[in-house]
This record gives sequence, C-alpha cells and structure tokens, in this order.
Amino acid sequence: MNRRYDRVTIIGVGLLGASLALALKARGLVGAVRGVGHRQVSLDKALEVGAIDHAHLDAVEACADADLVVLATPAALVPDLLDQIRPVCPAEAVITDVASTKAAICAHARDTWPKPLRFVGSHPMAGSEKFGPEHATPDLYDNTVTIVESRADDASDAWNDVAGLWKAVGCSVVELDPALHDALLARTSHLPHIVAASLALVAATHDAASTVVGNGFRDATRIAAGRSEIWRDICLTNPTDIVQGIEELEQRLAEVRQLVESGDGEALDAFFRAGQAARTKATGE
Amino acid sequence: MNRRYDRVTIIGVGLLGASLALALKARGLVGAVRGVGHRQVSLDKALEVGAIDHAHLDAVEACADADLVVLATPAALVPDLLDQIRPVCPAEAVITDVASTKAAICAHARDTWPKPLRFVGSHPMAGSEKFGPEHATPDLYDNTVTIVESRADDASDAWNDVAGLWKAVGCSVVELDPALHDALLARTSHLPHIVAASLALVAATHDAASTVVGNGFRDATRIAAGRSEIWRDICLTNPTDIVQGIEELEQRLAEVRQLVESGDGEALDAFFRAGQAARTKATGE
Repeated sequence: MNRRYDRVTIIGVGLLGASLALALKARGLVGAVRGVGHRQVSLDKALEVGAIDHAHLDAVEACADADLVVLATPAALVPDLLDQIRPVCPAEAVITDVASTKAAICAHARDTWPKPLRFVGSHPMAGSEKFGPEHATPDLYDNTVTIVESRADDASDAWNDVAGLWKAVGCSVVELDPALHDALLARTSHLPHIVAASLALVAATHDAASTVVGNGFRDATRIAAGRSEIWRDICLTNPTDIVQGIEELEQRLAEVRQLVESGDGEALDAFFRAGQAARTKATGE
Repeated sequence: MNRRYDRVTIIGVGLLGASLALALKARGLVGAVRGVGHRQVSLDKALEVGAIDHAHLDAVEACADADLVVLATPAALVPDLLDQIRPVCPAEAVITDVASTKAAICAHARDTWPKPLRFVGSHPMAGSEKFGPEHATPDLYDNTVTIVESRADDASDAWNDVAGLWKAVGCSVVELDPALHDALLARTSHLPHIVAASLALVAATHDAASTVVGNGFRDATRIAAGRSEIWRDICLTNPTDIVQGIEELEQRLAEVRQLVESGDGEALDAFFRAGQAARTKATGE
C-alpha cells in the first residue's frame, strides 16, 4: 500500500476492527485512529490495548473528516450505518467493511451512495472463536485471505485503495462478486457454523457425552464457540443461500441415513471416500 | 501395569495396532510381537518401523501360544476373528480389541467365549486422520482416554489386565457399558464424521469454494480425511444409534432452517448461544 491515512475511523472495536487498527499502526500507515462503539467498556479496552486513540459513541461525529472508514460491526448494522455516515463522509474518503456477508451490504451501497462509489466491501477471513478488543493483535491478518467485492467500473480508485489496505496488513486479496461470495460462504462457513452448533446441541443432550469427547469432536465443533451476534446477523443477511445450503446437507444426510439403514457397506465406503476427495478438493489438504 | 507379556499378537498392524506395539516395547513390557495382516506390504512396513518382530498372514497360527492378543482391525471383522482364534487361544491369554463400536463385539464375545471371559473390549480414543504403520509412534496413546467395557463379574482378572495395559501406555481408562458407549459415540464421533464428509461434499459441488475456505471449514471437516473402511465398519456395526443421531441432527437443522426463513433474530441469537453452551458442556472448553 502506498497510501497513508491520517484520519482513520473504525466503527466497531471488536477483534477484527481493533486488530486492523493495530496492524496499520504497527506498519506506520495511519495517524490517529478513532474508534466507535456502543459500549464504553469495549472502547476503554480498545484504548487500553492501543488500538484506538480516541473513543466515540457516535459514528457520525467520528466520520466527519475521516479519510478511511472501516465498518467492523455485525453485518446487519452495516446498511444503517452507511446511511448515517453518508452525509458526512468526505468525498475522497475510502470506506469498507469486514462483514461476512456481502450481497445485501454491497447492493445497498451501490444503490444509495454517490458515484464514483467510495465504498468497496471486504470480508477478511481472519479471526477465530475469540472475540473482543482484548484479543486484538497486529498480526491477525498475516497470511490470511481477504475477499474484496469485484471491481466496479466507477470505483477503481477506491478498489485499489481497499485492496491495498488489506495487502498492507498481510492479506492475499481475492476479488469476488458479492452474490457469488454469499453463495460460496454459505457452504464453506455459514452452514458449517450452524452444523457445529447443532452437533454440540445433539451431543450435549446426553449427559455422559463429555466423558467420551475426543479431538475429532473438538475440531468439528470448534467454530460453535463463535460470537452469537455475528452468526445471527449472517443468517439474517444471507438467508436464501443458507437455507439452500441446509437443504443440500439434509439431502446428503438422508442419503447416508438410507445407506446406514440398509447396511450397504460398499456404498458407505464409497461415500466416505467421496467425502475425503471432496475435502481435498475444497481445502487442498 | 505389573503384568508383562512374552508372546503378544497384534491382529491388524495399522496406526493403532503398530503404535500399541511400539508403546509396549518402549516400556519394556513385552517380549516378541507377532503382527497379523492380510497385506504383506503393511506387515513389511510394521517390521521396518520395529513395531512387530514376526509377520503372519494367518491369525490362528499367530495366536496359538499368545498371552496377549489385540484385535486392531476395522470393527466389522472382529466377531469373525474372535470365532477363528477362540479354539487356539490359551486359556490364560488376555484378549482385547480397539474398535470404535462396542455393543455388537462385546455381546458376541460374551455369547460365544467360555467363562471366565478373557475378552474385554476396548476403544482407545487416540489416532487421527493419519493411518497405516508408517505413522505409528510409541507416544500415540499418551494422555488419551481409552474406554473399556464395564467389568463383568466373571472377568475381573482380564478386566484388570486390559485396563492395566492401556494405563501402561499412557491412557486414562473410562469404564462404560457397551450399549451406552455406542449411543454416546454415535453423537460425539460417528455423527460428526458423517457430517464432516457431507459438509465437504456440499462445498465441493461449488468449484470456486476452494478459494474461500478458511480455518473454520478445515477444522469442521478435518475428520472427513479418515480411513473409509473404518467409518464404513462403524456405520455397519452401530446403525441404530447412528440413524437416531442423524435424526436428532435433522431435527435441529429443520429448526434452524425455519428460524433463518422467518428471519427471527432473537431466536437465532438464542440458538447460537445454546450451541456455545452445549459445546462448553460437552468439551469443557
């Protein structure tokens, strides 16, 4: 990234927002950082870990003279926040977000913001089941992938700025159409999360289950430890793809159930081999 | 473990069998180890890594004067193998297995072997998605849990010997009724495995999915990389509990699908919070 930002506003000082601030600061790419939150305790923590220099409860006030605005809140809040800050954001400001769903947010920005569009949606695939500014770290984004919404003809400057921002903090950038993003992430992230929570609920109904839990179960359900607001908002902002994903999974499960019921060893072996191959295809492992 | 075994026979020289042999040897608890396999290449590898001293293709021949026999084959083979070796196993031999399902195997042994029963079923919850004697290691069982079928009145000597065997190689021993074992493992292991394979299959139908796969997906599907024969046999030997587990999961998924379709944010938040709490209850994490 060649561009340096002097007046950065991070709306939402959780793990992603606070880590981005720390990463930019560690590389000397930003001046003062304003953090916006709705809970003073989170803002105080973000100040304490050095992620932000100024704390604000009001997003509009904090964006008035920003040259970079990053919306790092749960997904469902982003469209309203974009509406709120639109009148005050300077025309040359670069604006992005970090939400895990993109189609609704990017469509809202394209429909409501002036051209050339200064908002370019992002989805950094960093983070873990930990959350909050107390876990923020300047190397959260090292060697991770950030998906950036596909370049619009009228936003190439902003696109380069946003892609450059993520590259500067250590990410590879993948350009993806927002609707395709949501369809793919429904299968690779949103559905697995719903399933992890469901598996945990199935197991926990059996009181003695905890005595026989192994690493397989821990791995398979780890993402169920994520923050509920984030996943609630993902479901609220990507319902169609998630429902389709659930239906695709239900179909697979119905097939396996039938094989188990009929005791078809050959077909079960083929199913598990296909699962191995599919995982290799999807993960490269 | 106080008891030392001079003539050990390991039937099945994969990761679990070969690692047990190495673990016992490393502790000086065994004399010569005979390995039984149906593929010469696996036997050669087990000889090469020092897990076994003699290779046999015939289980009966290898058990004739054994004082410890461990069946470390896929689950569906165990009952037949027990029938084959029963006429030749010395009356004082200790016999156990390592299969991931226990009800059918333990019932078969109780129905067919003379009393006092020398067979005590085991399920060491060690291992990973790796398999084969080439990955065998003497510390595979360190700090893991082995489930041993609950003590029968007529098998207390053998029970102590088998429990002592696992403790000697680093395991904690949990005593569990075989039917309860299968019911619990269906929820904590068998179902998660089926789901991991199904999730991989759902994702892999979308060619671009691999570009957006993160650590969450890798964790959630890791166990899908396991060996297909093992999981086929688990399905074949624990069908009732697995089908019940699939049905319990299908019910959870139907509930979530309805919440996503109706956009019920409050109920979705409650669902994900319940998933977190359930995972904490099951894993202690």
